[in-house]
Parts: sequence; C-alpha cells; structure tokens
Amino acid sequence: MRRLNVAMIGFGNAGRAFSRIILEKQKEIEKTMDCDIRIVAITTGRRGSFLCEEGIDLEEACRQIEEEGAFRTDSPQYSKLTSTEVIRSVEYDVMLELTPLQIFTGQPAIDHIKAAMQRKKHVVTANKGPIAWAYKELREMAEEKGVCFYYETTVMDGTPIFNLTVDTLKFCKVTEVSGILNTTTNFVLEELAKGASYEEAMQEGRKRGFVEADPSMDMDGWDAAAKTTALLNVLMHADITPRDIDRTGITAITEKDIKEAKRRGCFIKLFCRGVIEDGKVVGTVKPIEVPEQELIAHIDGTSSAVSITTDLMGKLTIVEHNPEILQTGYGIFSDLIRVIDHSK
Amino acid sequence: MRRLNVAMIGFGNAGRAFSRIILEKQKEIEKTMDCDIRIVAITTGRRGSFLCEEGIDLEEACRQIEEEGAFRTDSPQYSKLTSTEVIRSVEYDVMLELTPLQIFTGQPAIDHIKAAMQRKKHVVTANKGPIAWAYKELREMAEEKGVCFYYETTVMDGTPIFNLTVDTLKFCKVTEVSGILNTTTNFVLEELAKGASYEEAMQEGRKRGFVEADPSMDMDGWDAAAKTTALLNVLMHADITPRDIDRTGITAITEKDIKEAKRRGCFIKLFCRGVIEDGKVVGTVKPIEVPEQELIAHIDGTSSAVSITTDLMGKLTIVEHNPEILQTGYGIFSDLIRVIDHSK
Repeated sequence: MRRLNVAMIGFGNAGRAFSRIILEKQKEIEKTMDCDIRIVAITTGRRGSFLCEEGIDLEEACRQIEEEGAFRTDSPQYSKLTSTEVIRSVEYDVMLELTPLQIFTGQPAIDHIKAAMQRKKHVVTANKGPIAWAYKELREMAEEKGVCFYYETTVMDGTPIFNLTVDTLKFCKVTEVSGILNTTTNFVLEELAKGASYEEAMQEGRKRGFVEADPSMDMDGWDAAAKTTALLNVLMHADITPRDIDRTGITAITEKDIKEAKRRGCFIKLFCRGVIEDGKVVGTVKPIEVPEQELIAHIDGTSSAVSITTDLMGKLTIVEHNPEILQTGYGIFSDLIRVIDHSK
Repeated sequence: MRRLNVAMIGFGNAGRAFSRIILEKQKEIEKTMDCDIRIVAITTGRRGSFLCEEGIDLEEACRQIEEEGAFRTDSPQYSKLTSTEVIRSVEYDVMLELTPLQIFTGQPAIDHIKAAMQRKKHVVTANKGPIAWAYKELREMAEEKGVCFYYETTVMDGTPIFNLTVDTLKFCKVTEVSGILNTTTNFVLEELAKGASYEEAMQEGRKRGFVEADPSMDMDGWDAAAKTTALLNVLMHADITPRDIDRTGITAITEKDIKEAKRRGCFIKLFCRGVIEDGKVVGTVKPIEVPEQELIAHIDGTSSAVSITTDLMGKLTIVEHNPEILQTGYGIFSDLIRVIDHSK
C-alpha cells in the first residue's frame, strides 16, 4: 500500500473538521485507493506543534486543542518547531496550508507554499490569500516542480467550483463569473430587509458567529474582492490582485435604500462579477438591486452562489446551502483525495 | 497520436450539435489530448446511414440532413446498413446512443448498448431510457467488459450532475436528491401563474417548441419520473424503474389552485425527490407549493435545478439556465472526452 505523509500548517476549526473526516474515512481510503494517509506534523501559531513519523493521534490532538486550548508540552509528540521549520525540515508528501488569512498580503501562507513547493511537496491550501495575491506565480512554480496545487476550499468551502470547471467542463471557455460570496454582508442586508436596524443586524450576526469583532474587511467588500479575484485568476486566467477589483462595500447602504428597493420588488445584494471587456478580465464587487423573481435574490442566511457562463455550456449556477465547518473540512479533504488521484 | 473511432447511432438535433462541437474543437483535442477523433459511422432511423473508415465529413452530413431531409443515396459515404447492423459489424471504439426515447421500454437503446458492450466497445448515451429502465444491468455489463459507460446528457443536458458527484464529491454519501426536471410542466405552471389559461399556456409552449404534439408524457409526470429514476439509480444506487416512482402529474392542477397558492405566497412546481426511508430509496414526482422566498420557486422558463444532499457536503444545488441544443451536444461531447481520459 502506498503511504502518504501529510503536514498540517494550522489547526483551527477547519483543520480539526478535516481531521475528523480523515478519522472517519481512513479505512475506506485504504480499501478503495490503496493509500495509507498519515498526518506526520501539525503546527499552530501559538499552541505548539505535534510531530510523529508514524502518524499523529488525531483524536488526541483535537481533544487537547479543544479542551486544553493548546498542545500539552509533555505529550510524546510535542515539538517546539515553528511552522516554517516544519515546512523546511520535516519529511512529508503533502502540505496543507491552513493558517489564518492576512487579507492584504496573503502572508505567511504564500511563503509557506513556496517553501513546500521548493522541496517538491504537493500543496493544498484553504487560504484564499495566496490565490488572490500570487496565483500565477504559485501555479507556475507548481508546474515547474511537478507538484499538485489545489485550493477548492478558498471559495465556498468544499463546493466544487474550481474542480467542477476543471474536471467536468473540459474545453469550455469561461466568459463570465458572478455570485454572492460574502456571508456577513449578505446576512446584514437580509436582516435590514426584514426591518432590523444596522445595529441589531450586526449584533445578531455576532451572536451567530459570522460577524467578526472588526467587520470592516467584510463590510468594505475586501473579503468578497479576494474571493472574486481567486475565481477570476483561476477560471478566467486574470492575473489580478484584490486591488484591481472595482470594489464598493455596503456601508453606504441605508435602511431607506433597502426599503425603496423593496418597493420596487428588489433586494439589495453585494454582487461579485467578472467579465471580459476589450480582451481584459474586469472584476467588480458592489451592491446592486436584484429583482425578486431572480434566483440570487433568494441566496439567504449563510448560503452562497456562483454562476459560471461558458461558451459551450451557457450559464450554470451552483449554490451552497447554509454550510457549516464540516463543509470547509471536506474541501481540504477532497483536495487531498485529488492529490492521491493525480500524483504517483 | 491515438486514434478514436466513433459510431453515432441517431443523428437528430443533439447529434448535430455534438458534431459541430467536434468540428470546432477537433484540433484542440489533438493538441491537448493527443487524440484523433474520427466519426466512422452515422445511422438514422429512416434517413439512411453514412460510413467512412477514414472519418465522415461532418459538415456535409449535417448539411444533407438539414437541407435535404435525408442522406443522399448517391453520396460516396452512403450505406443501407441499419443501426443494429452497424453496431454489430462496423469497427469503432465508442458508440454514441442518440436514438429517440421510448419512455416505457428504453428500447431500442438498451439493446444497442448491450450489443456494443458485448463487443467491448465504450458507450455514451444521451438517452435516459436505458438509465431509467436497465441501469444496474448495463453498469454491471460495462464493468464485466471493462468499458466506459457515460450518460451525463440524460438529466439536464451537459450540466455535470453525475460527473460532479462522481468526480468532485468523492467519499460523499448521497442522502437526498430533489429538483425541477421537466421543462414543459414548469413552463405551463409558470404561464398559469402569470394568468394564462391552460389552453393559452399549451399553445405558447407549442409555439416555442417545448410542448410536444402529445404532451401527456410530460403532463402526467412520466418524463420527470424517468429523470428522477436515472438520478436515484446512479447517485443513490436505487435499482428502480419509473414505475416505482410515486408519480402525480399536473393535469389535476386548476387555475384556482394556482391562484390560491399565490395568495399564500407560493408557486406550484412539479417537484422530484428521492430520499432514504427504512433503508430503501423512495422516489416521488408531484406538484407541491413552494414558498416564494425559496430558490426553486424561481426556476423558470426552460431552466432546471437539482439539489444533492450528502453526508459531508450538506446540500448543494446546481441550476442550468435556459439551455439550448448546444448544451445537449456538449453533454455528449464531455462524455466522449471522459472516454478519452479514462480508457487506454
């Protein structure tokens, strides 16, 4: 049986959801893919690292973080190595980049990915920073080094947006991409439309866990711009960064705007879009009025949607309904399965 | 370069749309996949056949059918061989089953597929009959003979429903499938909701080409039941036929029902669904009231939608917006590309 050693750089909610899927599906993967997946390294920012050549006890790793808040320094698997040291020195086949997003730089994720690829390791990232800020360079490096580089989780969790297009829409040329990609703004606009005030909407969103302490990255459209950039870079070969997106957040939208839109039979949505103009991919993120008979007027709660228009298959829309953290874990898992499929 | 010989059984609108994609993409396939696709046989029910070992002139074949209504008997490629004779005697690698659907038997498509597989030929079918009536047997036969067997076009044209699930949702277990799959009934219900009478709705639908001379297969829910069966057989391993679907058409729906639903803020839709009950897959097709804030209330025109719920990825919906015949052609084309990818 083939052995695949995995290093997890970052071990937050998504990493632990991924770990639980591995625990559940490990036997099935051995049986159907003849592959023995072992997690040989887990690093965190400030909670220590675990290393074990024979495979870390994932159950115990999750338990320590969740119950004790950090890896126990007296665990036999404990290590003081930093993420960068692990990426550069430990023996592994695939690196999973799961560190928190730095939305204006894509770092340290970009450096992590480069360091792993330099050593000819396959890379899976759940971090949209690298895809928004350095996609072309990383894609070229992956090709040069002959390694897999997957990033399905960066937009709409495990929903197969990139893989759908690459695997199942072969020979189709993408001419337009659009969608509703930011949960926080979508939730706030929905609550306002129901009659809540801004203050109430933000409070409710914080309570339900998808409005950040500092919500400006979402409200100003930066998160949506990063996701739009990722989509346009991968699906339309745009070679842009989030700064190239014509971006308007929702902070200028008033309760009155929403009421007036409603009177016209419309909902206001933060709409992301990329089209080709004069041979160039042009991306926008801005609030628009969507007539209530249109499908995307009804992307509510934490749901998201992406529409992809191609020359041969017309317009398709894929909707993810109210995802939870399991769906993020699955995105990482499905990319790892792709690595098994596409590498020798 | 590898050579792939293709026999087309049936040459209606979908077959000709497929042919035009081949003409457009042939060079690109040669370049990127190192494969030379040649159509070596085209058969029709009553319009003659074309045979040519070196590859049929597709442009001319389309022209003759479209301008002259049949293949010219004085064409050098003309042949009197029937579909069955071609399937059994001509040398080809892949058979495309594109004959018209016989909804209550799945014939002659099922026999065509068996005859081709018997000779160890790969099969692509755009005909939902075989998937609704004989999926398990054909799937087992394909495995026994070691051939590819693809059928993406049978539900929602080239929209990647089957391939999405098989290729990109690996290790996910499908627990529920639902959707709006029949254009005729969806159009009629939409027109009624707009205030048209049944008679007016049918007339408009006929004019626009998606209400048949005898619309009973659609109105009674048989078409939707066949598609539902195909989805449940493939995605949920149901091993059922359309007769096992609990089926109610829309003929009993009155204009009054629709008005009352509207007053309650609902649209009536012919809803297809499969769930697991007591360990068994149970399929239903019936008109239901869908609240207007739900996404599928807004699947209009000729659009369709399928929702797939899995253990690991929750609920995803994929929508095909107002497809044309090109999208059917693409479904056949994409399956042929899969044959190239998955066969040696």
